[in-house]
Amino acid sequence: MKRKDFFKGAALGIISLPFAIKTCGGQNVAQDTSTNISGKKYKWKMVTTWPPNFPVLGEGCSLFAKWVKEMSGGRMEIKVYGGGELVPALEVFNAVSSGAAECGSGCAYYWAGIEPSAQFFASVPFGMNAQQMNAWILSGGGLELWEELYDKHNLIPMPGGNTGVQMGGWFRREINSMADLQGLKMRMPGLGGKVLAKAGGNPILIAGGELYTSLERGVIDATEWIGPYHDYIMGFHQIADYYYSPGWHEAGTTLEMLFNKEKFNALPEDLQAIMRAAAARLNIWMLSEFEAKNTLYLKKILAESKVQIREFPQDVLNQLKQYTDEVVAEVVASDDFAKKAYESYNNFRNEAVEWSKLTEKVFYNKIQM
Amino acid sequence: MKRKDFFKGAALGIISLPFAIKTCGGQNVAQDTSTNISGKKYKWKMVTTWPPNFPVLGEGCSLFAKWVKEMSGGRMEIKVYGGGELVPALEVFNAVSSGAAECGSGCAYYWAGIEPSAQFFASVPFGMNAQQMNAWILSGGGLELWEELYDKHNLIPMPGGNTGVQMGGWFRREINSMADLQGLKMRMPGLGGKVLAKAGGNPILIAGGELYTSLERGVIDATEWIGPYHDYIMGFHQIADYYYSPGWHEAGTTLEMLFNKEKFNALPEDLQAIMRAAAARLNIWMLSEFEAKNTLYLKKILAESKVQIREFPQDVLNQLKQYTDEVVAEVVASDDFAKKAYESYNNFRNEAVEWSKLTEKVFYNKIQM
Repeated sequence: MKRKDFFKGAALGIISLPFAIKTCGGQNVAQDTSTNISGKKYKWKMVTTWPPNFPVLGEGCSLFAKWVKEMSGGRMEIKVYGGGELVPALEVFNAVSSGAAECGSGCAYYWAGIEPSAQFFASVPFGMNAQQMNAWILSGGGLELWEELYDKHNLIPMPGGNTGVQMGGWFRREINSMADLQGLKMRMPGLGGKVLAKAGGNPILIAGGELYTSLERGVIDATEWIGPYHDYIMGFHQIADYYYSPGWHEAGTTLEMLFNKEKFNALPEDLQAIMRAAAARLNIWMLSEFEAKNTLYLKKILAESKVQIREFPQDVLNQLKQYTDEVVAEVVASDDFAKKAYESYNNFRNEAVEWSKLTEKVFYNKIQM
Repeated sequence: MKRKDFFKGAALGIISLPFAIKTCGGQNVAQDTSTNISGKKYKWKMVTTWPPNFPVLGEGCSLFAKWVKEMSGGRMEIKVYGGGELVPALEVFNAVSSGAAECGSGCAYYWAGIEPSAQFFASVPFGMNAQQMNAWILSGGGLELWEELYDKHNLIPMPGGNTGVQMGGWFRREINSMADLQGLKMRMPGLGGKVLAKAGGNPILIAGGELYTSLERGVIDATEWIGPYHDYIMGFHQIADYYYSPGWHEAGTTLEMLFNKEKFNALPEDLQAIMRAAAARLNIWMLSEFEAKNTLYLKKILAESKVQIREFPQDVLNQLKQYTDEVVAEVVASDDFAKKAYESYNNFRNEAVEWSKLTEKVFYNKIQM
């Protein structure tokens, strides 16, 4: 009879940490033995892939630093650098790996060139959404795989946010069939770009700062970005006629906090725990902020422009899903770890789908209409 | 031209905390002035509404205590009490308010008898799901209202978890129309129970420990509980024929951490920040754990029993939604604060629905099929 188990309850394996006097980095450190708190102060650098003070994503990094400073009573100060301020945005992984910076903020799909399977810890087209990604990472074995992958790069990863389901992008012409994707010049990086290429489109990489002008002048026909809040700031609603739903290429992109493994492990245990909690607080804050701000700015875009909302036709989505399977199969074939990581991802996804069919999916269709 | 704003970025109001020597509760406290960390140790009690070590909900409280102990370097130890161990489960609010315990864990709808509008910070039938609740509370003004409501009770609330969309419950007979709800004896507390009563049903309050026997012997015809994980432990799949989706009465129930205001405000600022981060970490952990475990146990229930999954007919849901509007209107009419709180809740909900129609809803229908 299982039903009585909850009254007994399983004993939890609460770990009593041995708060012994420690040495940090080989040096004996002044320590208040009555509290086991080291008096040592740390000044860390955080390099990020975001423009300085980038809404939500960069703001979140500043919040992370603020929370860590507060929780540590000022013992840990983290200076946040925007992309390009200390190292180029796409050098964050290497800079933290080498210890040039102690920590960093980015998104794992930026490191596909270094580790193809890193992408599975960020976003897979037609993959999991925010709630499912968090469940896989925090409670489904995802984090352990992510840590294993980054370990050989001297890095410790933590989930540090999620964008939620993104929008499908801004288009100067309608997409009514696969034929409309032929030759379409669209800014779309990563796996999504590869899927677009298989569909006959022309994925183009353009830096954020040049996107508006490129779209305005017809250098590109379309661009994806994030969602209404960031897209509004970019001004795309002033120059594109159609705003497409859904963001099939990024349905729940996980953002990452990166730590240099040696530097992290050399921290006293209280500061390590503080980092983990700050990352978790950032994770839930960021998703909430995206949800609230996108809700607000969708209304603003519709009120202030003549942009028309469109939904990709189901047959187009089905075909893109098929191409996605091919693209993912290529990544999986690229190395053994990719196979292992995707197996975990995909197994979790397939079972989560069955659960969502009784809950979240029904919620959106029959409860919150 | 708004599009360049993100390169400039809005300066963030990062607060530099004045880490001056402080007095705690009128006493001068030994303090390491080089780190501004007080050496004072705290031993707190957490009273909870959960059975001891209750899966996810009680486990989460133990994790909260573990994280706080780690982050504080052992300066803050919290002993967690199950419901009834120190005070009865439903006395948690009063016990923390009076300072008999410094903190507590529960769910705001338990305090409907003390503050009717507390329910809006837990769950409203046909209301918001987890992602939307977090967005409203953390980024949409919900927390400020919640704090205002609890302030006069000498309490500080924080969101500390979410169940996600729950299941609709276990039934010994099928529900094909409103007629099938007539006289239905069902365990259903709170607003959901009031809705059931309006529908002609007979909501019955039964303690968790007596539910299995009551359902087995036909004392009740149906019971809601949480989701597959907790329901499996209760053993309902052994004695009920039908498991209904969705949990229209609890589509994203927020759990709460409660703090005695005076005790909390008397803590050094670093420990206050540590509490906030631990609650946030618990918030995202709990939702992830529910999602992962429910996914797993749904499979287990279907493999190990002959229970049949059913979905409430849309016309039944529509009618229950109408009764919900009446029940909520009664709460809103009960005091001015309820009106203010529900207005905020409902405005946020209505706009979030529009956003979800382009994102999460499309995700479940057209991306993750």
